[in-house]
Amino acid sequence: MRDAFHEELDSLTDRLVEMTRLVRSAISRATTALLDADLQLAESVISRDEEVNQIHAEIETSIFELMARQQPVAVDLRMVITALRMGNDLERMGDLAEHVAKITRLRHPDSAIPPELRSTILEMGQIAERLVTKAGSCIAARDAEAALELEHDDDAMDKLHRRLFRVLLAKDSKYGTEQAIDVTLIGRYYERYADHAVSVARDVVYLVTGSRVQDLTS
Amino acid sequence: MRDAFHEELDSLTDRLVEMTRLVRSAISRATTALLDADLQLAESVISRDEEVNQIHAEIETSIFELMARQQPVAVDLRMVITALRMGNDLERMGDLAEHVAKITRLRHPDSAIPPELRSTILEMGQIAERLVTKAGSCIAARDAEAALELEHDDDAMDKLHRRLFRVLLAKDSKYGTEQAIDVTLIGRYYERYADHAVSVARDVVYLVTGSRVQDLTS
Repeated sequence: MRDAFHEELDSLTDRLVEMTRLVRSAISRATTALLDADLQLAESVISRDEEVNQIHAEIETSIFELMARQQPVAVDLRMVITALRMGNDLERMGDLAEHVAKITRLRHPDSAIPPELRSTILEMGQIAERLVTKAGSCIAARDAEAALELEHDDDAMDKLHRRLFRVLLAKDSKYGTEQAIDVTLIGRYYERYADHAVSVARDVVYLVTGSRVQDLTS
Repeated sequence: MRDAFHEELDSLTDRLVEMTRLVRSAISRATTALLDADLQLAESVISRDEEVNQIHAEIETSIFELMARQQPVAVDLRMVITALRMGNDLERMGDLAEHVAKITRLRHPDSAIPPELRSTILEMGQIAERLVTKAGSCIAARDAEAALELEHDDDAMDKLHRRLFRVLLAKDSKYGTEQAIDVTLIGRYYERYADHAVSVARDVVYLVTGSRVQDLTS
């Protein structure tokens, strides 16, 4: 049986996993809204980011209370510290999905994405979803091995990000400045979203092993 | 007289202040290198980011050891938690300065910044420096009042960031796609640098008062 303290730690884990679900849904809807120039869907991403911020604030409050009341050590201490960091990363991922949705809203009824870049953006959205889904499973199962895999998935995102710029810069394509700005920002948002997912996974590795990823892979 | 534990906390503070100095110097040199298309200076920003990462790693290690050995409570606990977060923000600011330098290197011997945007970029660099200098003083003096001021300085950065896009989009200007991408990314780097400085200042407010800025200003 778990004592009250460990039940609180379990509840932290549950809420972090819930955050991964919310920010996965956010980036999924943001990508669809972006590709379909769907204003209503974009608005839903923007308004529902508040939920993510709310859970994040609750997690922080719980952690500060917990640390003041209990004096966690060893793996419990690592759980508390990494929960703080994972909460920050996930909150930021929600913001980035919201940024994508805001560009969609700004350009509506036009689409911010030119036709020849749609498939790349779609793939970036899919990888973002895959990364955050995996990060959520790793948190739930405290699975360091699976967490290490995210490093490779992130390489796929970087590749797509470079492809985006390549298409944008291709000599025969004539983009306006506004379109170049939009695509550059959107590409950056997806890339950063993926980076934060990797950062969450790294914290799972640290939580489970007590070692940093850099020290394990170098 | 300070006991060993509080001496360690003081040393944490010193190292965070040292980090603010390093990332201030980094953004200052990155801005000069960008405006002067100075490859050597850009290279120095890129290679010296390792110093920032090194101090950051040392701070994290100290904090984990400290938390495992001691069980800090109240303001000491807040010091440890905020030091972790401030370290992350400052490390990221170093990365952002490095990103600016990498664009400079990529475009050398050309300049990434068209003449009519130079003064805006110069101002963005100056505000970035001002913000991080203030953040450093706030950490050193544990000055929550001064820390709250950074919220307003950040507004100036957002204003310049919008001006950058306005000039970029002005009908009579004809920028190439590459230039639009560069300026968009550079603008974003300065804006995020400023956001992280504000985040450091917010942590100083939390450290000193035990309350979050949102709760104090709403």
